[in-house]
Amino acid sequence: MKEWTKHDLLDIQELSKEEIELVLKTSKSFKEVSTREVKKVPTLRGKTVVLLFFEPSTRTRISFELAAKRLSADTISISSSGSSASKGESFLDTAKNIEAMNVDLIVMRHSASGAPKIVAEALAPSVINAGDGCRAHPTQALLDLFTIKERLGRIAGLKVGIVGDILHSRVARSNIWALTKLGAKVTLCGPATLMPRDIERLGVDLCYDLNEVIAASDVLMVLRLQKERMQEKFLPSIREYARMFGINRNRLKAAKKDLIILHPGPTNRGVELSADVADGDHSVILEQVNNGVAVRMAILYLLLGTKEK
Amino acid sequence: MKEWTKHDLLDIQELSKEEIELVLKTSKSFKEVSTREVKKVPTLRGKTVVLLFFEPSTRTRISFELAAKRLSADTISISSSGSSASKGESFLDTAKNIEAMNVDLIVMRHSASGAPKIVAEALAPSVINAGDGCRAHPTQALLDLFTIKERLGRIAGLKVGIVGDILHSRVARSNIWALTKLGAKVTLCGPATLMPRDIERLGVDLCYDLNEVIAASDVLMVLRLQKERMQEKFLPSIREYARMFGINRNRLKAAKKDLIILHPGPTNRGVELSADVADGDHSVILEQVNNGVAVRMAILYLLLGTKEK
Amino acid sequence: MKEWTKHDLLDIQELSKEEIELVLKTSKSFKEVSTREVKKVPTLRGKTVVLLFFEPSTRTRISFELAAKRLSADTISISSSGSSASKGESFLDTAKNIEAMNVDLIVMRHSASGAPKIVAEALAPSVINAGDGCRAHPTQALLDLFTIKERLGRIAGLKVGIVGDILHSRVARSNIWALTKLGAKVTLCGPATLMPRDIERLGVDLCYDLNEVIAASDVLMVLRLQKERMQEKFLPSIREYARMFGINRNRLKAAKKDLIILHPGPTNRGVELSADVADGDHSVILEQVNNGVAVRMAILYLLLGTKEK
Repeated sequence: MKEWTKHDLLDIQELSKEEIELVLKTSKSFKEVSTREVKKVPTLRGKTVVLLFFEPSTRTRISFELAAKRLSADTISISSSGSSASKGESFLDTAKNIEAMNVDLIVMRHSASGAPKIVAEALAPSVINAGDGCRAHPTQALLDLFTIKERLGRIAGLKVGIVGDILHSRVARSNIWALTKLGAKVTLCGPATLMPRDIERLGVDLCYDLNEVIAASDVLMVLRLQKERMQEKFLPSIREYARMFGINRNRLKAAKKDLIILHPGPTNRGVELSADVADGDHSVILEQVNNGVAVRMAILYLLLGTKEK
Repeated sequence: MKEWTKHDLLDIQELSKEEIELVLKTSKSFKEVSTREVKKVPTLRGKTVVLLFFEPSTRTRISFELAAKRLSADTISISSSGSSASKGESFLDTAKNIEAMNVDLIVMRHSASGAPKIVAEALAPSVINAGDGCRAHPTQALLDLFTIKERLGRIAGLKVGIVGDILHSRVARSNIWALTKLGAKVTLCGPATLMPRDIERLGVDLCYDLNEVIAASDVLMVLRLQKERMQEKFLPSIREYARMFGINRNRLKAAKKDLIILHPGPTNRGVELSADVADGDHSVILEQVNNGVAVRMAILYLLLGTKEK
Repeated sequence: MKEWTKHDLLDIQELSKEEIELVLKTSKSFKEVSTREVKKVPTLRGKTVVLLFFEPSTRTRISFELAAKRLSADTISISSSGSSASKGESFLDTAKNIEAMNVDLIVMRHSASGAPKIVAEALAPSVINAGDGCRAHPTQALLDLFTIKERLGRIAGLKVGIVGDILHSRVARSNIWALTKLGAKVTLCGPATLMPRDIERLGVDLCYDLNEVIAASDVLMVLRLQKERMQEKFLPSIREYARMFGINRNRLKAAKKDLIILHPGPTNRGVELSADVADGDHSVILEQVNNGVAVRMAILYLLLGTKEK
């Protein structure tokens, strides 16, 4: 297996199949650390990891913060509110100032697609994209892959349905790349107004009949519906959306017995998922959260722990 | 002495007299740690403590955070603003996601009475109630007991007056339970509109004459007056309240010489306490804050440090 | 060289020339720590450093937080929002409560001039003024001195132009004291409406012709223009200000070849500095940020690490 050579993680596309498999393998060994009595290894002692979130986030920020702390790194958390952003400084200027403090890695989320890439190109520290606009969220895709593989033993050949607001979803985009690269067959399903043009070019199928997608899938990846989409006239109403594209127990009668359902969280219970499905046997939502820490430990380790800078 | 067996600390009522005494004894030994040159012990190294505050708080959050850090635990702080709460996620869903990250203990404050209990029942990590609605604030009661016992040598037989807005006070409720269980004689004093119905059932006396309460008490526990109570028509005015139930130097002329005055903070100087009384000889307010860290270290240690999970 | 005896750092004026030089020399040795693979020394293990910011700040807070963490201190960050300040508690009361938790040092920023001094006089922990109103920002002056000396080899005899809103600038005030004490020749330049009365008493020159100041200076210290000053009628417009007092490439043609340009950040590109100057060869802005961590490590070390309390 090739050794890790990447300096940043901006996109799932830039990883080869071998690199993705190295991440998954490394994640497996770090997953064990979080189950120990003493959940801490000295791997990144004396390294500085900055969490630079220009969009609010609980789970992703905490997941990275815990991952860094369990590797013994020092963490600094910066959110846009209360920061220089409110004084009108550009995100690149903010990032350059952080770099000047000799930090080793910046985990960055930003509403503008491409912002982490701009920072990575300009700066010496490693950059992890923790979500940029509607573009990419590579660690989410990696933890989804890990969860699927842990449950079903493989990725190649699986039928994966991605359901919901594909148009605005960075989770969908990163997963489409990752899943197709590892040989899964991806079908997208959602309102036509929320389907990107020419998305078939990425090697996926479209299907507007949710029941058909459910019946055929080994994995359902259900996306969060942003309530703002109503105001933007993409959808007539939440109720209408839930009726057409919400996953509920009744619909799952036609599903394969060992279907697993993923959701990047936070869930809108009663909208894209009924509460009993979110908490039901098919759901692996909390496993995704659990695996997220392990995958992020692996990424931090691969970016920082294996090389002299 | 019985060993500690509790998994959570939700309420002072669920602790036996022996358990309360074990907490106080353990607190005493941890109090010494914070006076050392190196204020840190490795007791909880590799444990993860999450501070999940759905209500703003300075002193309680910091007190727990310092307690956890001085025990070498990793801490993660989550406040409702900037979190998934703003995306409409339920507090139980937030907590389940935190649990999925293999955390050991959640310190939780919430405006809804009973919220920490719901979380504790649903989740594997230990839960400490850091204040829920008007219901309970058990670590405050424990630090108050510790402070009283350290100052006056005992709890049993003491006369304790609790003065102010009893109706809305979780501090009062937890202290009434704790003090009566340890044999103190509690008298409540405050405006009739702010006195809960049938509160005598808890084994306390009522007295609407503050001067009488002051003269009889070994301990005065003065409650914070929430200014919102005016708008809710419980009180005609702050001035009226201060005149009737504010503790000032003049009123204390009739007090016992070694009376001690407690307040959970933050104080409204000039309302429930005059500034000279808050800073005066009777006041043990800052000792309470000091003892708070020690008591919280003891609780964290008892919940996490003494058992294999 | 005299040993360090100060308990607090409130003001640059209270430091002797020898003490300033001790800080600079100590900073140099700590600067090396941040370039190591393991950026951490155990100097302040078990010490508690509280960052108490009543005004928003990114770079100063992070700089102190990183400095403290690289010295292995425990840090607690308190910003005014979400704290007891919103419950009406005075800053002194907040600080006394923090003191009661056995903290070792408080780094404090406040919009009121003199607030850190009030806290330092009332409290046992050491206090570092991280900026109070328009009055003082001593660690900024120290890091500016360090940067100048590192670049130009000396302070004494240098010609330093400070350009911009002198009236409202704590950075200017602290630097005027520090630079003149170390023997630099300081000239102030800016709009007459933003020049304090009788400022010449501090031993500086005034010059309203920016070109003349640029031509004569070894060092230009450019101040941030607060946009609020427009509304307060100190200035007709930002455009007018940029035209009169903005530093751009064209103006720098008359500058000395090894002129260095400092700015405390965050910069308003296109206002007080053009983008090409901010990123150009004369600029040492990011070196200032880099040196800031080292200088703050030195200050924390001198205040906490060298004495028994």
